[in-house]
Amino acid sequence: MRIDIVAVGTELLLGQIADTNSAWLGEQLAAAGVDSHFHQAVGDNQARIVLALRTALARSDGVIVCGGLGPTPDDITRDAISEVMNVPLVRDPTIVEKIRYLFESRGRTMAENNARQADVPQGAATIPPAGTAPGLICAVGGKVVYALPGVPYEMSEMFTRAVLPDLRQRLGDQSARSTIASRVLRTWGTSESALAELLARRIEVLDAEPDNPTIAFLASGMEGIKVRITVKAPDTVTAAAMLAEEEAHVREVVGEAVFGVDAETMESVVGAGLAARGLTLGLAESITGGLVASRLVRVPGASTWLRGSIVAYSPEVKFSVLGVPDGPVVTESAAKAMAEGARRVLGADIGLALTGVAGPDPSEGRSPGTVIVALALPEHDCESIEVHLPGDRERVRQYATISALDLLRRRLIAGEIEVSQAC
Amino acid sequence: MRIDIVAVGTELLLGQIADTNSAWLGEQLAAAGVDSHFHQAVGDNQARIVLALRTALARSDGVIVCGGLGPTPDDITRDAISEVMNVPLVRDPTIVEKIRYLFESRGRTMAENNARQADVPQGAATIPPAGTAPGLICAVGGKVVYALPGVPYEMSEMFTRAVLPDLRQRLGDQSARSTIASRVLRTWGTSESALAELLARRIEVLDAEPDNPTIAFLASGMEGIKVRITVKAPDTVTAAAMLAEEEAHVREVVGEAVFGVDAETMESVVGAGLAARGLTLGLAESITGGLVASRLVRVPGASTWLRGSIVAYSPEVKFSVLGVPDGPVVTESAAKAMAEGARRVLGADIGLALTGVAGPDPSEGRSPGTVIVALALPEHDCESIEVHLPGDRERVRQYATISALDLLRRRLIAGEIEVSQAC
Repeated sequence: MRIDIVAVGTELLLGQIADTNSAWLGEQLAAAGVDSHFHQAVGDNQARIVLALRTALARSDGVIVCGGLGPTPDDITRDAISEVMNVPLVRDPTIVEKIRYLFESRGRTMAENNARQADVPQGAATIPPAGTAPGLICAVGGKVVYALPGVPYEMSEMFTRAVLPDLRQRLGDQSARSTIASRVLRTWGTSESALAELLARRIEVLDAEPDNPTIAFLASGMEGIKVRITVKAPDTVTAAAMLAEEEAHVREVVGEAVFGVDAETMESVVGAGLAARGLTLGLAESITGGLVASRLVRVPGASTWLRGSIVAYSPEVKFSVLGVPDGPVVTESAAKAMAEGARRVLGADIGLALTGVAGPDPSEGRSPGTVIVALALPEHDCESIEVHLPGDRERVRQYATISALDLLRRRLIAGEIEVSQAC
Repeated sequence: MRIDIVAVGTELLLGQIADTNSAWLGEQLAAAGVDSHFHQAVGDNQARIVLALRTALARSDGVIVCGGLGPTPDDITRDAISEVMNVPLVRDPTIVEKIRYLFESRGRTMAENNARQADVPQGAATIPPAGTAPGLICAVGGKVVYALPGVPYEMSEMFTRAVLPDLRQRLGDQSARSTIASRVLRTWGTSESALAELLARRIEVLDAEPDNPTIAFLASGMEGIKVRITVKAPDTVTAAAMLAEEEAHVREVVGEAVFGVDAETMESVVGAGLAARGLTLGLAESITGGLVASRLVRVPGASTWLRGSIVAYSPEVKFSVLGVPDGPVVTESAAKAMAEGARRVLGADIGLALTGVAGPDPSEGRSPGTVIVALALPEHDCESIEVHLPGDRERVRQYATISALDLLRRRLIAGEIEVSQAC
């Protein structure tokens, strides 16, 4: 079964909001084993909504249309559906009374506009509202159009309560009942083409059978490369087992470049690693200007393991606050002194420091993109790496941030770091 | 002129990422005076990409297709376009060499896969890449298909550099001696409805004549409300004069809520204000965790006026490094002590500090969203403001960042701050 999605609202076309409803619905449909091959967004214009609905119905078994069910004159999804169905809109007096009651129970008077929300294309069924706008289930020549409001919490509640059960019933009529599930392995430090080559043999094996899992790559810029495993199975238990098995295959090949799964981020993984070992972290940032700290504080509970960061953007701050010896600052020794300084000044178990050249001009004879990361661990010699990163100032900084966090992550999973009282 | 957008990627249909590219492109097209009536998202499937492109070409003058230009076998936008154009794909040896050089200059070897990115539909023009994937400009029966990578920063850079100028040229050919120009005034601190009320009388005056400038509001979340002025004029000189005149009208009504124009950002405006006055800035950040510093270092030349930031995420760091007196830290007096500490420790003319509660739980009896900003200026008493911000952790922090920068901006334009030797 295939369901298209049509999002209605000029604000989507103008980029004033991103279409998160379609993303959410796509995820729900996939989980229910319903294919969704095309999403469309269209403005508040009846002729164009009609065209979008007809296009969608021509290439699928049904449509979920979101938005345009409000009370104002530019809410015209109802009108467009009745045009597609070729039936008149009929005002339902029971719904008018319900909306009026809803207003009065809040001590307000219903504006006459709101009665428009009780207009129903002749022959359509209504979905009781989560807010004030009822939804619609409309039969169109053997196919189905579901209409839901654009307000995200109303849309999701009404989808789960009414659309999903209706879809399940229609699916039940069909022979193949299945679920689609996927898992994303997030990687850092290996290029997309190198990952594709590493996994080429495995993908060839999988491609031999149509019911096998599929593997796809998704370049996410600053966030590395995602490897997505998708399975189709008769039920969710089988799907979960297939995902786990395929994940093991991928991890065996790709190794510790996999830093997280699904919603995990580099910062959440580093934070969990520190929390599990009872370690605290102090940062010294020059080139990244606070970016490493600002990513880490996104993790709920960061205050238990993050002491803070000394953003030493000017060399004098490196000397006076962090105790870096006078001299050039884009060097291995300066980076190590910064990491040790961060540990000492911030009273942390681990010190992580970054220095480098964001560009566009060289500095101290080093070219833009040169970044040195130093890591001071308890009972280890301070270590450092030098990397050469591509792109403009902002990209160099973003890459430097994730490179530094990845270095710490790899040391944490290597299990070499223990809590220590002494520095 | 009407341009459809087609976003390619199964991850969009499965809801693994929201389609922010189409939103961004929609905004750019609107600003350029190009209509965009339909957006589509489609998976990594050649037959369906072809169908989406044909659907888009049938109802518009051209298409921007985003995504599917990578090196892996599921990147098939090139193949789909060549099918729509009914021409073969031809590998361009010059592009292969450029990609190979790009890899080798980073000390890596180009995987053979990457050569696929040099495949060009016969007769199409290429857009030099921002990353490794070149874009395409393809003529299809008097219409045009632009192909851009799905990685947001590559997409936006290549759109601005190559697609927009090409579109402008086509617009110029079409709209016979008329030019559309627009200017965006960026505001902070006034709600969209309040701005609309302030400007209601002016909009009424403008609406009376069809050739007058138009004013539109774009809510941009963390970045405030944009007021976009659009003019249509016989030539660019007249257009520029009309824009300048209308900007003066809007500024007269909206006042100092306007913080910048077009590409100016809150941080670039603050940086320019500091540089012009020869002042240096030191930060002390708790709730924002380095976000204020990381925004400021985006401004080229930041090293001349930004000393650094003490990210004092744990209370002990506030006490030991910044000299905040022991006690609660979400208070006006702690914020002021942080600002004075930042000036002193970082050796800066101005100290700016933020403390507060990001949530989800209250802290020190203060509710999530409570933020205190303190500003220590030369020869002034330290001042502070308390704000209550909506949203989750990340939104509270983003709003806190721009609120703090806006406070400093308003003091800088008030012209009260002079360079001082003494603190």
